[in-house]
Amino acid sequence: MSVKTMEDLFVATLKDIYYAEKQILKALPGMVSKADNSELKKALETHRAETEGQVERLEKVFKLIKVPARGKKCDAIEGIIDEAKEHMDEIDDERVLDAGIISSAQAVEHYEICRYGTLVEWAKDLGHADAAKLLAENLKEEHHADTLLTEIARGSVNKTAEQAA
Amino acid sequence: MSVKTMEDLFVATLKDIYYAEKQILKALPGMVSKADNSELKKALETHRAETEGQVERLEKVFKLIKVPARGKKCDAIEGIIDEAKEHMDEIDDERVLDAGIISSAQAVEHYEICRYGTLVEWAKDLGHADAAKLLAENLKEEHHADTLLTEIARGSVNKTAEQAA
Repeated sequence: MSVKTMEDLFVATLKDIYYAEKQILKALPGMVSKADNSELKKALETHRAETEGQVERLEKVFKLIKVPARGKKCDAIEGIIDEAKEHMDEIDDERVLDAGIISSAQAVEHYEICRYGTLVEWAKDLGHADAAKLLAENLKEEHHADTLLTEIARGSVNKTAEQAA
Repeated sequence: MSVKTMEDLFVATLKDIYYAEKQILKALPGMVSKADNSELKKALETHRAETEGQVERLEKVFKLIKVPARGKKCDAIEGIIDEAKEHMDEIDDERVLDAGIISSAQAVEHYEICRYGTLVEWAKDLGHADAAKLLAENLKEEHHADTLLTEIARGSVNKTAEQAA
């Protein structure tokens, strides 16, 4: 795909995050099933359901700008998810694994936060006010998921994980 | 590498970000030379110099915890940088390219922000107070670089980029 205008760059980045969200949707159940801490398990499961809603919002954005909803292979999220899987394979102790899962999930969240942050700005500048609103809702959910993961890490997971020896 | 304890996970993540910083150090000059907007060029060049200092701080952290400073291949940063290069190849118009470069650089920043955020917490919990201080300095610089890129995007780059047609 050749990118000539900001509209093209907006669409290319939208396809990138659409692909990324679908990969995340595939990866989250594995993280839910490997998580041991009940709060963490619940937060990841809630976020999996939220991600389904985010994919639907992205499809609405595609419709608003009259572009077919299609993903574009995103090397970044592939790398982040591969690293998450590698972490899960390397760690035996379930307490340390929980800390590792939070770290990986926050890498995913931060990727999404930066992409949605950019997309919201571009959508506003390009006059796509309704698309900007939908993208801002996804951004808000990602921020919330990231904050919740930090709270779970600080509240219980990290202290429990230190007991592993 | 087998990860059994939080100390192992801390070291593994330290090796991950050490590898990532070195890859970023290699990638930044290409972004500096492709950037057209003078403020953006300057910000990326400043951040390249800062990144050298960050690598040195990481080497101090390795010394403090008595582990040889060695990187560990980080799929996430490879993916993020590959995507940045792909963007740079796809975009011809220098005004749109500047917006694309900011977007890619912010993906890099967010990866580092989440890794340093995690490492600072773990270092404190593990009793590595001096290491936590050094890692927090890197985290602060990444946050600052990210904020500055947002300001440059909002201030001039995005508006100029919209003129491309």
